[in-house]
Amino acid sequence: MATGSGKFSTLYPVGGLRLGTASAGIKTAGRKDLVLMEMAAGSTVTGVFTQNRFCAAPVMVAKRHLQADASRYMLINTGNANAGTGEQGVADALKCCQAVADAVDAQPQQILPFSTGVIGEPLPVDRLLAALPSAIDNLSEQGWAEAAEGILTTDTRPKGASLQFDINDAQVTITGISKGSGMIKPNMATMLGFVATDAAVNEELLHRSVRLATEKSFNRITVDGDTSTNDSVMLIATGSSGVEIDESTFEVFLAQLTEVFIALAQAIIRDGEGASKFVSVIVEGAEDTQEALDVAYTIAESPLVKTALTASDPNWGRILAAIGRSGVEDLDVSKVQLSLNSVLIADCGCRAASYTEAQGQQAMQSEDIEIRVALNRGQATETVWTTDLSYEYVRINAEYRT
Amino acid sequence: MATGSGKFSTLYPVGGLRLGTASAGIKTAGRKDLVLMEMAAGSTVTGVFTQNRFCAAPVMVAKRHLQADASRYMLINTGNANAGTGEQGVADALKCCQAVADAVDAQPQQILPFSTGVIGEPLPVDRLLAALPSAIDNLSEQGWAEAAEGILTTDTRPKGASLQFDINDAQVTITGISKGSGMIKPNMATMLGFVATDAAVNEELLHRSVRLATEKSFNRITVDGDTSTNDSVMLIATGSSGVEIDESTFEVFLAQLTEVFIALAQAIIRDGEGASKFVSVIVEGAEDTQEALDVAYTIAESPLVKTALTASDPNWGRILAAIGRSGVEDLDVSKVQLSLNSVLIADCGCRAASYTEAQGQQAMQSEDIEIRVALNRGQATETVWTTDLSYEYVRINAEYRT
Repeated sequence: MATGSGKFSTLYPVGGLRLGTASAGIKTAGRKDLVLMEMAAGSTVTGVFTQNRFCAAPVMVAKRHLQADASRYMLINTGNANAGTGEQGVADALKCCQAVADAVDAQPQQILPFSTGVIGEPLPVDRLLAALPSAIDNLSEQGWAEAAEGILTTDTRPKGASLQFDINDAQVTITGISKGSGMIKPNMATMLGFVATDAAVNEELLHRSVRLATEKSFNRITVDGDTSTNDSVMLIATGSSGVEIDESTFEVFLAQLTEVFIALAQAIIRDGEGASKFVSVIVEGAEDTQEALDVAYTIAESPLVKTALTASDPNWGRILAAIGRSGVEDLDVSKVQLSLNSVLIADCGCRAASYTEAQGQQAMQSEDIEIRVALNRGQATETVWTTDLSYEYVRINAEYRT
Repeated sequence: MATGSGKFSTLYPVGGLRLGTASAGIKTAGRKDLVLMEMAAGSTVTGVFTQNRFCAAPVMVAKRHLQADASRYMLINTGNANAGTGEQGVADALKCCQAVADAVDAQPQQILPFSTGVIGEPLPVDRLLAALPSAIDNLSEQGWAEAAEGILTTDTRPKGASLQFDINDAQVTITGISKGSGMIKPNMATMLGFVATDAAVNEELLHRSVRLATEKSFNRITVDGDTSTNDSVMLIATGSSGVEIDESTFEVFLAQLTEVFIALAQAIIRDGEGASKFVSVIVEGAEDTQEALDVAYTIAESPLVKTALTASDPNWGRILAAIGRSGVEDLDVSKVQLSLNSVLIADCGCRAASYTEAQGQQAMQSEDIEIRVALNRGQATETVWTTDLSYEYVRINAEYRT
């Protein structure tokens, strides 16, 4: 199950960025499961990574290589996360980097490895490397759509976003792909997002932009509250457009980049495991950002709220109970207002005088649901996107691996 | 679904404590849904209550009445939580107290009201009070088993625990009942527990014992991480045995009381919504209690761990991922050990050399599963009890109310 049409607009090529996809048979024979991305010399590259302490071997290696040298290639496999694999996992990731370096005449430190899939199984390095020549042969600036397929796991559809805009009368392109459907509560980034622009952006500005855009996109989604071991969002600036981003143009660039990031993050939620609803939880009038997020995530991750959403049941008492346990110590419940889409449900901490059950049921029929909470105690507002909790979620996660 | 046999031993009467159960038709016609408990004059009474900010009207009233006067009666209804009902909810709870006081010749402040059921619906006071005379007529020291039925909601079975022991060669009885199946992560207490003893215990010692026993029982269970608006555990000491608890006998009394509390708390987990597994999550070698609990609850509430348990799939990578995101900042993953029942699964942060998938599958076949995590960084150990996450959980919570 998934929500929305899943369609995305054309993925515009980004000059200086080529992608090649191949089938290595890592988990399923014949499936596209290996992607190589080549970044032109002179590109700047940055990323944000999972904060899970059991971070995967490729995450450790990618962070080290980012520091060590100018990155030229990213190698991404699906079907195996190479996480919880200890020293052997690190050795396997390094072996893959070495093989790419040998094949393309680069240094191993210029290769960034990424993996996604089952945790705790050894990476099938031989099968992966056997497919590498095919990925290299396929390298093309037109390769985005195929790469979007090649990084999926339990996802039911590829995810992409792309836009073009002008800075000082010159055209800039931003294009990205992402994957993710379960184990989604990114803490810094989600597993996996790759976004590239042909603008020239220096490392400091590039890193600032990936942090700020992630904060408003990948760090605002949750399917099940489970933070992956492999989350990574990478941002590449090839500079091929000749447009250089500086402090004067940074805000324009950041706004467009954030739009791409939000589209990719929302695509993950629309394809959330077993999703039949796309839910925006908006908390207004909180004292600060953290308080707004605490309330929003408590609602968004409540199994009782999520099962009520599955049933299209306006069981708003469960939402109030979630607000009440979200850790806001001195919350004055008599000031809390709650609405579902445009229907005011609770006011003064109890059922609104104007509310009828029929209105609530009507609102809950929509595929897209907006849960809006006004705490009326401050100025902070935050939005978190999530899904419902369906039979299908249980089926997918009880059957995965077997 | 539920785990274990659900059988409990004889519920011994407690001198000075009478219970009467009746059918008020609050949610379902003919169902036992109203319980009155009468405490002999001179009894001491204490309780711990939910910390949910949206606490229910009866919780507010019960806390106020406990302070105001010597409690003589408790009135408990199921089928309606009288929560999220604002000022009208408080007025309704007070109206019920007044009616009981009038009928039994007591003061309204001597009546403690408790409610459980759907949140956000007005309490049907008229129906409730119409059944009150029948509950009064039924008052009996033999009424425990029927009362255990009369407080249930989505529970599939009644829950009780009872034991007798000697203090200074005189017999003391402790008997209790509880209910709860979903919306279970008590924060101070669970919805609902009522425990009585015929020992004489002064208020200070009684309150100390309910706090300490709750900390090791009701505050160590979770079904879905959702803290109820109505959680309450009440402890009554009638003194009818003539045995007085003082500092010299407190530890003996507390140990027996804690045993009853743990039995009642575990009965809630065994009857957790949709439960097919009874899971003990034991975290050893943590730096302090909070750290042990953070890790234990992160595992116990992870939807991915819980769906793997449903499938009896030893998908231990999900457990490592939960440990890794549990907020232990400087965790050295290479020291972490993980076992399922007696099978060592992970060592040094990755798969143990001795581990085979067959061993893991064997361990997961049990109905009772012990997940043991050794962090190897300190001395604190804590245990949390939980269930799996099944289709049945989704069905129950998607269909509840409708």
